[in-house]
Amino acid sequence: MKVLIIGGGGLIGQKLARSLAARGTLRGAAIDTLVLADIVDPAPVEASCTVETTRCDIADPASVAATIDADTDVIYLLAAIVSAHAEEDLDAGLNINMMGTLNVLQRCRELGTKPVLVFTSSIAVNGGDVPQPYSDYTALNPQTSYGAQKAIGELLVNDFSRRGLIDGRGFRLPTISVRPGKPNRAASGFMSSIFREPLQGQSANCPVDPDFNHYYLSPRKCVENLIKGAELHAEDLGQNRCMVMPGRVWTIQQMIDAMTAVAGPEPATRITWEKQPEIEPILKGWRMDVRADKAEALGLEADASFEDNIRYFLEDDIAPGGA
Amino acid sequence: MKVLIIGGGGLIGQKLARSLAARGTLRGAAIDTLVLADIVDPAPVEASCTVETTRCDIADPASVAATIDADTDVIYLLAAIVSAHAEEDLDAGLNINMMGTLNVLQRCRELGTKPVLVFTSSIAVNGGDVPQPYSDYTALNPQTSYGAQKAIGELLVNDFSRRGLIDGRGFRLPTISVRPGKPNRAASGFMSSIFREPLQGQSANCPVDPDFNHYYLSPRKCVENLIKGAELHAEDLGQNRCMVMPGRVWTIQQMIDAMTAVAGPEPATRITWEKQPEIEPILKGWRMDVRADKAEALGLEADASFEDNIRYFLEDDIAPGGA
Repeated sequence: MKVLIIGGGGLIGQKLARSLAARGTLRGAAIDTLVLADIVDPAPVEASCTVETTRCDIADPASVAATIDADTDVIYLLAAIVSAHAEEDLDAGLNINMMGTLNVLQRCRELGTKPVLVFTSSIAVNGGDVPQPYSDYTALNPQTSYGAQKAIGELLVNDFSRRGLIDGRGFRLPTISVRPGKPNRAASGFMSSIFREPLQGQSANCPVDPDFNHYYLSPRKCVENLIKGAELHAEDLGQNRCMVMPGRVWTIQQMIDAMTAVAGPEPATRITWEKQPEIEPILKGWRMDVRADKAEALGLEADASFEDNIRYFLEDDIAPGGA
Repeated sequence: MKVLIIGGGGLIGQKLARSLAARGTLRGAAIDTLVLADIVDPAPVEASCTVETTRCDIADPASVAATIDADTDVIYLLAAIVSAHAEEDLDAGLNINMMGTLNVLQRCRELGTKPVLVFTSSIAVNGGDVPQPYSDYTALNPQTSYGAQKAIGELLVNDFSRRGLIDGRGFRLPTISVRPGKPNRAASGFMSSIFREPLQGQSANCPVDPDFNHYYLSPRKCVENLIKGAELHAEDLGQNRCMVMPGRVWTIQQMIDAMTAVAGPEPATRITWEKQPEIEPILKGWRMDVRADKAEALGLEADASFEDNIRYFLEDDIAPGGA
């Protein structure tokens, strides 16, 4: 089996690659080849199977054609222009998030091999004046360009699946926390940095009040869910291949308390509390009472507590040997 | 004021043009110029203002740029590849319904004039295993490529409006009945032909059972709603510019009874009842308990009874001087 991760150089892509390499199988078959593709050369991962790395610009159909071949059994489409970036640059978001997704789907159609395609959508597809809680049946009503483009991606994945051109499944990712490494251009960046930096002795700013609540998932559980997501049977997906990925709603205060419970009182003192007007309009569109009934019924899982999120970060990303 | 109708050669486009010409005003201003654009030269309409007709292929950005200029105050975007055609030819649907809509929006963005844009979506954006009744808040879950592409159009119209690039508003049209003229390639064609043909002494086939129910609106009311739709104030539209247009749910039997009430028993005897397997999969995805709460609150209206639909057809399309 050949597995391709588009966006294989990113945080989730790299963790997913390492997890797949460690498992060695997917959908009941041995993974012979793992291909990591990204807009810049992705870091390779250690594995007993063949690992290839390649550049791919999904906005360019020729680049997509060079990346997806008839031997590709499972495609993870993780590449995206994230929220604050898509809000700043409408064309970049349309080119990558909308046209890039279409290019990947059209390439699959051209090959005629009906690969499994796992698409990462976002809870940002919901928003605005829509009744809460958000469920799998809530209107797509994004209040950001990123959310609009991800919603368009869902519609395309569903339509190409319905037509039998791919075996698609999409998951609306909660905000991932704690993200290791450097901040990306997501407006939600502070939702990781206020833990990541203080746990490593540095300060970080929180631009919202302690009672701000949101819907979170750890990178570890996200990767587990993406692997389960590829293994779901098409007949269990029903008439909408896209669903909310399980997560949990926490307030900032609950998360800080969890950090204190795991790592003592010091880190919390390193958080500053200054508002950032440039991201306020984006954050205001996110209201976050969310249910993931369908995915939970299919066996996908959230973290048990935010203390787990903190522990996973320390174990997976800070401990020697973590990455 | 300059009003452009893209799709101005179609049934609704022509009726809308005649109605705007008869009124002479829109949004409180005199209409100086009415432009009818379509993929083939649209028929001109009689008017006291200037009427221009032009060819426009919305799949071609240069053609769109030649059609929409900085003086254009209101754009009706009615052009579409309809349901059965979009199901047969995925690329045609993507090029016109998705990329064509994006091309129009990008042209407006380029001009920087923020025109009012009235987009015709469809109740086909709803479908599948979603709780009934469908409302403005029901998940976009189309089960046809046409519905998927219209849903994508809605998301684009909303996002470009939210960004202040257009003043958009979209309406999910009920199935229009009684449509005059020749059948188009919509799977819903029989929903007009079983009245239109028998009322003119010809036979027509009904491929569904008499208890098949669906959501309908007459062309006359549709045009009235499109005019009201252009005149709505942006601040009344909320965080989703797209909504269900009012219509009424009727069974085939209720509609036939209405025809009999208006025109006597003869026409109903001219209906044949043979199933058409090629359109069954499309019709099965349409479940039609629909609410148009938002549009009704804003003053848009459905027909009072299907007898009205029959009378409007006879008055507007069959009577001498109708077209």
